Amino acid sequence: MRSVSWSPPAGVRLIDQRELPQRLVHLECATVREVADAIATMAVRGAPAIGATAAYGMALAARSDATLAALRAAKAVLDAARPTAVNLEWATAHMLRVAEALGVEGDALAGVLVREADELADDDVRVNRRMGANGAALIDGDAPNLLHHCNTGSLATVRYGTALGIVYALHEQGRRPHVWVDETRPRLQGARLTAWELMRAGVPMHLVADSASGLLMRGGRVDACVYGADRVAANGDVANKIGTYNLSVVARENGVPCYAAVPTSTIDLSVPDGDGIVIEERGADEVAGVGPRRTAPEGVQVFNPAFDVTPARYVTAIVTEEGVCRPPYEVSLRQAKERGEARVAAAFEARLAGYKAEQQ
Amino acid sequence: MRSVSWSPPAGVRLIDQRELPQRLVHLECATVREVADAIATMAVRGAPAIGATAAYGMALAARSDATLAALRAAKAVLDAARPTAVNLEWATAHMLRVAEALGVEGDALAGVLVREADELADDDVRVNRRMGANGAALIDGDAPNLLHHCNTGSLATVRYGTALGIVYALHEQGRRPHVWVDETRPRLQGARLTAWELMRAGVPMHLVADSASGLLMRGGRVDACVYGADRVAANGDVANKIGTYNLSVVARENGVPCYAAVPTSTIDLSVPDGDGIVIEERGADEVAGVGPRRTAPEGVQVFNPAFDVTPARYVTAIVTEEGVCRPPYEVSLRQAKERGEARVAAAFEARLAGYKAEQQ
Repeated sequence: MRSVSWSPPAGVRLIDQRELPQRLVHLECATVREVADAIATMAVRGAPAIGATAAYGMALAARSDATLAALRAAKAVLDAARPTAVNLEWATAHMLRVAEALGVEGDALAGVLVREADELADDDVRVNRRMGANGAALIDGDAPNLLHHCNTGSLATVRYGTALGIVYALHEQGRRPHVWVDETRPRLQGARLTAWELMRAGVPMHLVADSASGLLMRGGRVDACVYGADRVAANGDVANKIGTYNLSVVARENGVPCYAAVPTSTIDLSVPDGDGIVIEERGADEVAGVGPRRTAPEGVQVFNPAFDVTPARYVTAIVTEEGVCRPPYEVSLRQAKERGEARVAAAFEARLAGYKAEQQ
Repeated sequence: MRSVSWSPPAGVRLIDQRELPQRLVHLECATVREVADAIATMAVRGAPAIGATAAYGMALAARSDATLAALRAAKAVLDAARPTAVNLEWATAHMLRVAEALGVEGDALAGVLVREADELADDDVRVNRRMGANGAALIDGDAPNLLHHCNTGSLATVRYGTALGIVYALHEQGRRPHVWVDETRPRLQGARLTAWELMRAGVPMHLVADSASGLLMRGGRVDACVYGADRVAANGDVANKIGTYNLSVVARENGVPCYAAVPTSTIDLSVPDGDGIVIEERGADEVAGVGPRRTAPEGVQVFNPAFDVTPARYVTAIVTEEGVCRPPYEVSLRQAKERGEARVAAAFEARLAGYKAEQQ
């Protein structure tokens, strides 16, 4: 199950996450505008999934007008769809760079851009599988109980997932993981998406309220907590979905390890620590109700931070595709980041050389 | 605003909590059966409010047939409405004891039982006001920020509340408290009831997701956490709404005091510690959806503990109507409990003597 794929002749095919878990509906986007709308309305969500979708959006633009001018216009439309999504802008910039480096326009460019978008999507899956294997090796014994926060799975990525990738790796290894899925208020990504994914994959799970995690850990019923991250600072501080900090504090108090699973692209060495990360605040309606149903009184004041920062001392290890990072994170994260960047750069240079050779 | 009152000629008047926060609707119960239904369907909830309602239910029974036989039958009907509610059985047993001690039947008995139910209800308000004043004295300075879990206010009691009584006391003293109201998944007592009460009382507040408490505390935006309890063990372990443990662990980690506010009747010296408290598990629907709206996939497995136990070491102080209990709780709780029981017994003996004198 890929959340994002190239699907000729229509164009980009997405799982419409707004319809989950009630129905599995695919959305076919035939134009750049339709791709941008899918991103803006959160039919697709999750940083890696958004990045791959945007890359395919650029390929779609080239299919109708394979000129640098058209690609630049498409980039502007796509980037505006979710201005704070770093992976989105990275993907559109990357695709434009490919076009510029290639130095051709027309059908040849259009063909290369579809292949390059496929490469980016495939690389996301490879990175996730490596992360999953690295994380699974941290978990002792058979039939482990993992507590998972938010959604970090196939739906948030192209396929497989980051922290949920650890669960899938254990499952594929026949080690029979069981997952406590916290519902993740206010947007319920756990209840709506993670529960759906795990049930579909046949991984045993129980849905719990976010605030039941402590009772489970105190009762010795959790072997490890796993979650992703939106950004990891140079010192290992982790910005992730609201509630990650509470979970990590309660875990440490109970001797339960916490593993953050992130691709090295999520490590931001330009941010020295979590104090430098601005926390997005979202609208009142998410907390004052559930979907269209209002539960709190009309006119209620709400404070709705989307993320929190978990200081590095609560994070037992940070799992990346380049290996497991341990404290001191200043050293281990930098090394992993450099390995990841070198690998991506080398692979890209090789592909670019190939594309150019074909144009000769 | 009383959640429960005697309202002739109809009988017992309740705020119908199922309609909140959308509408303020009063329910008039004219028969024992209607009172039992109101308790069973949770039109009235909160241990003290249920106790007072049941006492009025016994008075209602005496109005139509003031015999011991009729009262015993009414007690059976009321007790069955919510078998696990300790206050309910205590209240009906108390009313029956009054009737037995009085030794009369007919109109004289019916009149006494209405007065006795009023006395129980009034005493709940008095107890809450003393608890509120004792708790307010623990809070330093003006404009304190309190974080409150679940609903412990006028709606859970006859009036005023336990932990919310501390907030109301501060408000009445002109000390301008601001309350972070956590929504309290899965049943949303915070979002539905506490927010409604505080807005109605004009106390400034913000609604937050349960998992946002850590971000607030880490940011220095909480001066104290306040909550009630369903039961307090002899060693100070506190059984309360699920999530109280998480909140208390995160609070201690951040140097934020936690105050549990309970009437001494909630202290159970027969239970040495929290390990002896059985945690009720509730149905899957509460977590798999919100009200009638389902959010998780069909068929999802759910674990839904209604309460958790917070070990005494995380509870800074336990506020009662008989004073503030501090560690070692084995000593301070026993003293408070004994004072409370002695006060209740003396007041009751005096009332009973008065009732008997009137019958001469």
